[in-house]
Amino acid sequence: MLERINTPNDIKKFSLAELEDLSKEIRSFLIEQISKTGGHLASNLGVVELTIALHYVFDSPTDKIIWDVGHQSYVHKILTGRRNLFDRLRKFGGLSGFPKRNESVHDIFETGHSSTSISAALGIAKSRDLNNEKYSVISVIGDGALTGGMAFEALNDAGRSKTNLIVILNHNEMSISKNVGSLSLYLSKLRTDPNYFKLKRDLENILNLVPPIGKSIHKSIEKIKDSIKQLFVPGMFFEEMGFTYLGPIDGHDIDSLIDVLKRAKKMEGPIFIHVITKKGKGYVFAEENPDKFHSAAPFNIITGEFKKKNYDTYSDVFGKTLTDLATKNDKIVAITAAMPDGTGLSYFAKKFPNRFYDVGIAEQHAATFAAGMAINGYKPYFAVYSTFLQRAFDQVIHDICIQNLPVVLAIDRAGLVGEDGETHQGVFDVSFLRMIPNMTIMAPKDANEFVEMIKLSSMMQGPCAIRYPKGNAGDYDAKRKVSFKLGKAEVIQEGSNVAIFALGRMVNVAINAIDKLQKNSVNPYLVNLRFAKPLDVETILEISKKVDYIFTVEDNVMVGGVGSAILELLSDNKIYKKFYRFGFPDKFIEHGDVDSLFKKYRLDSDSLAEKIIELVIS
Amino acid sequence: MLERINTPNDIKKFSLAELEDLSKEIRSFLIEQISKTGGHLASNLGVVELTIALHYVFDSPTDKIIWDVGHQSYVHKILTGRRNLFDRLRKFGGLSGFPKRNESVHDIFETGHSSTSISAALGIAKSRDLNNEKYSVISVIGDGALTGGMAFEALNDAGRSKTNLIVILNHNEMSISKNVGSLSLYLSKLRTDPNYFKLKRDLENILNLVPPIGKSIHKSIEKIKDSIKQLFVPGMFFEEMGFTYLGPIDGHDIDSLIDVLKRAKKMEGPIFIHVITKKGKGYVFAEENPDKFHSAAPFNIITGEFKKKNYDTYSDVFGKTLTDLATKNDKIVAITAAMPDGTGLSYFAKKFPNRFYDVGIAEQHAATFAAGMAINGYKPYFAVYSTFLQRAFDQVIHDICIQNLPVVLAIDRAGLVGEDGETHQGVFDVSFLRMIPNMTIMAPKDANEFVEMIKLSSMMQGPCAIRYPKGNAGDYDAKRKVSFKLGKAEVIQEGSNVAIFALGRMVNVAINAIDKLQKNSVNPYLVNLRFAKPLDVETILEISKKVDYIFTVEDNVMVGGVGSAILELLSDNKIYKKFYRFGFPDKFIEHGDVDSLFKKYRLDSDSLAEKIIELVIS
Repeated sequence: MLERINTPNDIKKFSLAELEDLSKEIRSFLIEQISKTGGHLASNLGVVELTIALHYVFDSPTDKIIWDVGHQSYVHKILTGRRNLFDRLRKFGGLSGFPKRNESVHDIFETGHSSTSISAALGIAKSRDLNNEKYSVISVIGDGALTGGMAFEALNDAGRSKTNLIVILNHNEMSISKNVGSLSLYLSKLRTDPNYFKLKRDLENILNLVPPIGKSIHKSIEKIKDSIKQLFVPGMFFEEMGFTYLGPIDGHDIDSLIDVLKRAKKMEGPIFIHVITKKGKGYVFAEENPDKFHSAAPFNIITGEFKKKNYDTYSDVFGKTLTDLATKNDKIVAITAAMPDGTGLSYFAKKFPNRFYDVGIAEQHAATFAAGMAINGYKPYFAVYSTFLQRAFDQVIHDICIQNLPVVLAIDRAGLVGEDGETHQGVFDVSFLRMIPNMTIMAPKDANEFVEMIKLSSMMQGPCAIRYPKGNAGDYDAKRKVSFKLGKAEVIQEGSNVAIFALGRMVNVAINAIDKLQKNSVNPYLVNLRFAKPLDVETILEISKKVDYIFTVEDNVMVGGVGSAILELLSDNKIYKKFYRFGFPDKFIEHGDVDSLFKKYRLDSDSLAEKIIELVIS
Repeated sequence: MLERINTPNDIKKFSLAELEDLSKEIRSFLIEQISKTGGHLASNLGVVELTIALHYVFDSPTDKIIWDVGHQSYVHKILTGRRNLFDRLRKFGGLSGFPKRNESVHDIFETGHSSTSISAALGIAKSRDLNNEKYSVISVIGDGALTGGMAFEALNDAGRSKTNLIVILNHNEMSISKNVGSLSLYLSKLRTDPNYFKLKRDLENILNLVPPIGKSIHKSIEKIKDSIKQLFVPGMFFEEMGFTYLGPIDGHDIDSLIDVLKRAKKMEGPIFIHVITKKGKGYVFAEENPDKFHSAAPFNIITGEFKKKNYDTYSDVFGKTLTDLATKNDKIVAITAAMPDGTGLSYFAKKFPNRFYDVGIAEQHAATFAAGMAINGYKPYFAVYSTFLQRAFDQVIHDICIQNLPVVLAIDRAGLVGEDGETHQGVFDVSFLRMIPNMTIMAPKDANEFVEMIKLSSMMQGPCAIRYPKGNAGDYDAKRKVSFKLGKAEVIQEGSNVAIFALGRMVNVAINAIDKLQKNSVNPYLVNLRFAKPLDVETILEISKKVDYIFTVEDNVMVGGVGSAILELLSDNKIYKKFYRFGFPDKFIEHGDVDSLFKKYRLDSDSLAEKIIELVIS
């Protein structure tokens, strides 16, 4: 059946039974494909029926469907002619794991970060109104994404408008991990308490039984009945926000979904549809461990097992080391914005549940909450992916750095993340943190050094950030001492007329380039910067004076990065040498495996060596 | 009476009548002082009684009071021993207009931007709990600030906790302008409809009248009564968020305020107190025009009149020019985050109400909403103060620039803003925008050029930003043609061995330095950059090759600013010259008048000339 579907029109004439069969086929296809390529399995299994119903009822791309975060758009991609591209899902040059306008006219608005879809949908809806056009605009948003402040800003703006707009809450009680917060409790109440919905009807029936005692009481009853309509409906929260609330609906019952979507399509004003789904639906291992199957590596379909990871990631090293430090320092607390597992903080949470705070998908709040704890004498670690820290940029400046508070930003997934692409690469943080006064920025070359940096950060009196990459941290020994001082770089190798200053993971890329360099008679100084701010002025100046060529290497954009920092430093000290910066160019970096991307952007050891040789020898 | 108050303890033994007299004295003091110095009058007049009641009931600084935004903290400053400093309010070296920890132990957490106080208060409360201490933590937040997403993130996190925390809603229906959004409508309903609060009581009375018809109905009634408690209370929205709602309370009735605060002090868990105040209360001109008296210049107390402004600000030029363009281009739409007047968009709003969108204090939503309109063929102008754009940093990257959408960021208050200090200076935007791919950044040297830049921006196919300063735009003629091309700088003066590259308002600072330079035999090239990105590579390289000394001048931090951009460019082109960057150092810039600050940071014409002479002649 799947073979016959190349556009959403192909399913419009399907019977209900056929649509149900289709959903089964799609599930098998997803499990089969993602078991091979890896990808976001659980969230897509959860929206199979919802996506089918959406494309059955609405006419994409005339009607606009916007997928919040966008990792749940695989079914939408299958139904819009991209089924055959799934073999290359998230691979270099292959199908993106998120909506991309250059892939399909059905991808209306690109997403990746959470909580943007209602704002985008409202913008599209308002401009449709200016054009006097008629079509539906639909935002599909999870209950996790709804805890992000900007979703609330958008609800607040949309709710008072008369604009036709449909917000579909895909309620599965999960972000990547279990959702938190009072809104989440409220939604659960709506979901689980059938009495909650019958109250209005019951109350009206009972009021009809009140005997005709006096005129004034009857007037009161009438007044109450009027008010009940406004006051006593399910989804009150959303009704108060100005939306018409419909739901909750079983998100795996295509018939009900089609019914409610058809109703919503005809209604005026902002509509909120509450759909209950199960993340991982239809694949037992994913249902039981939706977080493990959120963004999954390839797995064995029969056993649900992943290839066993026999190494620690940087996230693991962070989680374990912080937990270790926290045993001795009871002022250490840890904060995550809905990423306890991804950041490695689950180790900490297990050992110190009272000192661990999952604040929901709410990076802004997380940063200022950390500032509040720091002002009261605590040492908060806010562990966050580089790309999501962008959300808290103002709070880092305004609440942490102006007050010079000892908050530690543990920046995971710094540099390339690979498969998730443009929206997720962590290639800006050195630039946007370096410009903030009072900030210290570190980046370890390996796990041993990382451990030392975490230790040092626990003693810092002001704000500091440690940025470290996704993935394998390699061998390390947490007990091994690394000679390490605040603001000091490590000279890995003395050389002659060339200096290489490298940051973080790029130190090893540079180390691996040395052989080739030396074979070509280039014998560089190699410096592991360790600190992007403050720079080790003494070491950098001393070495820079001795050489003719200076190279900087970072996995950050070159604009305003650590290369620029060194250039600024040299210029301020009137040292003018041939200078070349390795880093990412001034463009967004697409998805693909990290190795291919490093090669493409000529940041692998070979390319590094070749470029240096070319510049020095020529 | 005011003379006798040096700490909050001094009011603890006052009678109610004395407290009321005190409030009158404070009002007179505020009006008298601010009429001379200027400052935030209306918001402070609105919280006189609330602040007195807070310090009467709570023991600051043991109990912690956090002022959201903080411009309403004058009364708090008066009661905490800073009365005598008001003569130098907001002046260089004088009293800050916002809470500052180095001013007083009673200033618990520094604020300036909106919507941070609940996050900070929750952080303080949670760390208090870890310490097993007992004291109250109070956030005072306006209904405008409550529309900011991070306030919602914090409510969502606080509401589900059992932490003792008091959030006081200072409900005056104003941000700086009138509030918008569905939450605002909801709060008004609570405020204005007394029936809304009586319903619960009435309903319970009536249910008692239902005759004993049958067991099952009686069971229903009991169930309903139980549920009513949860469902049928005023402030449902906040109750649903997990707070105990108290209110609404008349915020100018000290007795009621003391009563409710005493109750709240004894209650457990998160408490939400809804206080109704009038912005400008007690000064008729401020009551009638609270927006004009929000951040007021000195004024005549008797007439309520300000010294007449006989010039256009950059905001005026923006508003008028955009309105003019929009008559010819019906795709132009304008967006503000609660700043229609401050940004000059009130001109536009008046002429094109249907194409004007005030989305509330919600910069994140504003940026992505703009992206949504742009994707649908419109040309959105998001007018925003530089410092508040920091809030939308991620959305500018993720929603506008990755999709390369033709949104214009009209960045008002770029560079120094002066009196509002650290939290409001717009000195980071060149650095944080320059690192984003696809972004174009312009800065006009004067109003004529600004008009041309606005025109150019309306034709741009991708994202662009125009940054311009606060205040007087000088003489200009909107009809005068300025020769102007995308990406091209203006060579103002040819010279010999020195080049000055200046950006925006700093061009005139450089022009005014030329006399002194020439008297000292320094004859510079002077280039008005116009574009911070893309740089005019051709002009910059050509001139740089000819000179020995290069100076860059910007009113942005030097780290990663336009000076660094030029340094990167020269380095990439193997041009190595003596290079000196004028700009702000790597620290937060305090409050004070702009002239004093420019002098202090040696960015006035004299200092510029002196430094250049020193470097070139020596």
